[in-house]
Amino acid sequence: MRTIKLAMLGYGNAAKAFRSLLEEKADDLRDTYEVEFDFVSIVTKSKGDLLGSSTDTALDVAETADYDILIELTPLNIFTGQPAISHIEAALTRGKNVITANKGPIAHAFKRLDTLAKENGCFFYYETTVMDGAPIFNLTRETLKFCKVTEVSGILNSTTNYILEEMAKDIPMNEIIEKGKSLGFVEADPSLDVEGYDAAAKTTALLNVLMDADMTPDQIQRKGIEDISYGDIRNAAVEGCKIKLVCKGWREHGKVYGRVAPEYIPINHLYATVSGTSSVLTITTDLMGKLTIIEEDPDILQTAYGVFSDLVRIVEKEDAGYSEE
Amino acid sequence: MRTIKLAMLGYGNAAKAFRSLLEEKADDLRDTYEVEFDFVSIVTKSKGDLLGSSTDTALDVAETADYDILIELTPLNIFTGQPAISHIEAALTRGKNVITANKGPIAHAFKRLDTLAKENGCFFYYETTVMDGAPIFNLTRETLKFCKVTEVSGILNSTTNYILEEMAKDIPMNEIIEKGKSLGFVEADPSLDVEGYDAAAKTTALLNVLMDADMTPDQIQRKGIEDISYGDIRNAAVEGCKIKLVCKGWREHGKVYGRVAPEYIPINHLYATVSGTSSVLTITTDLMGKLTIIEEDPDILQTAYGVFSDLVRIVEKEDAGYSEE
Repeated sequence: MRTIKLAMLGYGNAAKAFRSLLEEKADDLRDTYEVEFDFVSIVTKSKGDLLGSSTDTALDVAETADYDILIELTPLNIFTGQPAISHIEAALTRGKNVITANKGPIAHAFKRLDTLAKENGCFFYYETTVMDGAPIFNLTRETLKFCKVTEVSGILNSTTNYILEEMAKDIPMNEIIEKGKSLGFVEADPSLDVEGYDAAAKTTALLNVLMDADMTPDQIQRKGIEDISYGDIRNAAVEGCKIKLVCKGWREHGKVYGRVAPEYIPINHLYATVSGTSSVLTITTDLMGKLTIIEEDPDILQTAYGVFSDLVRIVEKEDAGYSEE
Repeated sequence: MRTIKLAMLGYGNAAKAFRSLLEEKADDLRDTYEVEFDFVSIVTKSKGDLLGSSTDTALDVAETADYDILIELTPLNIFTGQPAISHIEAALTRGKNVITANKGPIAHAFKRLDTLAKENGCFFYYETTVMDGAPIFNLTRETLKFCKVTEVSGILNSTTNYILEEMAKDIPMNEIIEKGKSLGFVEADPSLDVEGYDAAAKTTALLNVLMDADMTPDQIQRKGIEDISYGDIRNAAVEGCKIKLVCKGWREHGKVYGRVAPEYIPINHLYATVSGTSSVLTITTDLMGKLTIIEEDPDILQTAYGVFSDLVRIVEKEDAGYSEE
């Protein structure tokens, strides 16, 4: 029996759900891999290390605590990826494995962090950063080996998907926003979603990981839905279309490009059927053509599962004696 | 450098495409895993072993040839799974790894063959049997660990999907069949598709592998599209629906059930957008809810890739020193 020590940075809903899931599956994990998990630190910004000193910061823990895997779940800064990048960097520099659900580091510093992980022989996983626990990065990594990703596209921001749908029902914007907030689909400040920043960060993450792009979100051509009017949506309907905020990435003359923009989607196209908080991603590869994956109405359990699945992967890879490929 | 000896049973289009793909990727495989592949036998029914004796049968080769992996690509008998089952059984009994693209054995004898593989410490993979190379079994096995599949549904037979679509355009049946045959969407005898036998075999394969069902196709409630009239399709359209041949599997009081039947699908449902030879599968699990995967207009390359991906998986598992879990 092996005990794996976990340090968790951030203790919001996803972190709590992950911790519950890990407890729920403790027996299965013990039976399957002969491992147990022990949280040595759980750090929040306001309370310090809940299992240690109240003066310890997340960076202190990443830099000095005695753990095997850092679980990085601090809040996102979509413009810088910080402070998550520093936490991850500190852990990888020490040769510690890292799991994050924070898209900031993948959108802003993936290449650097991934290289650092490889140099130090540790694992760096981030399945949850796009489409929650839906296996996007693992699907490509584990099941599409030797396939070269040539294109990605998808609907990856549920807030705008929800707002556009409600607009199509002619519901006034203030009602949409109020109801969206009460359902948890709309943030206190919806501008990061509405103006396409969240979608651009996810697109960058996809391009960095799947297409080896080494980009930052400001290099994505970004247009949000803030200028879409009720009239635009009616006009689209007249032409048999819905308006959706679509993310795209492609390769042209050896360079990778990304774009986020509202698009007319014909109502008989599968993207038109992706509604509410569901999301969709199409991955085009040289050997397998277009594969599309749809996640329907995820909740916090799917986020927890994404982190959990990364954890299981690290255990398996270590058992198999792999180092990071 | 390690040489892996392959014996291939059947040499139709998929087998040829697989062989080409393997040649195309030979350098990559050598660089990545330090392996080379060598075909020791390629057997067809009419010509015997193209690399050996013209009197050798597929079963002779499975039973006696010196190979590491048997690639089972003989034609399907949807009612019995034979002779593929016997070929696979012979290989597994000898402790040889097996890859098959033939859904017969998975629909008729999965439990027995899977048990035999485990007892003899060898690998038995069959990704291509449902939705070609789209990662269905590998998705579930590799990326949804600890998720319990509670339900599956999908559109898995492209012949009926094509016929129903053409009927909706009011094209006469003889023209549909003729055009379908020339495009390769319709078999010489379309009855196995039209009457739902192919869909039932695929459903059984899914239930056997993903839901531990130990069923045979005759236990699936099966209704084909042979009784669907042009009038039925018009009536569905009046109600805002398309008719699709839908496969379903679910668990009820601890028992697994499967059904294949034409269903009304609302035109704003994503299944209504899956057209032509595309297929769709939704896997519902306890931890990840509904995940849907769509394969768009596959051709023979996708089939070849499915076999190739199983081969790569065996190489990786052997390198990692795993035995079959």
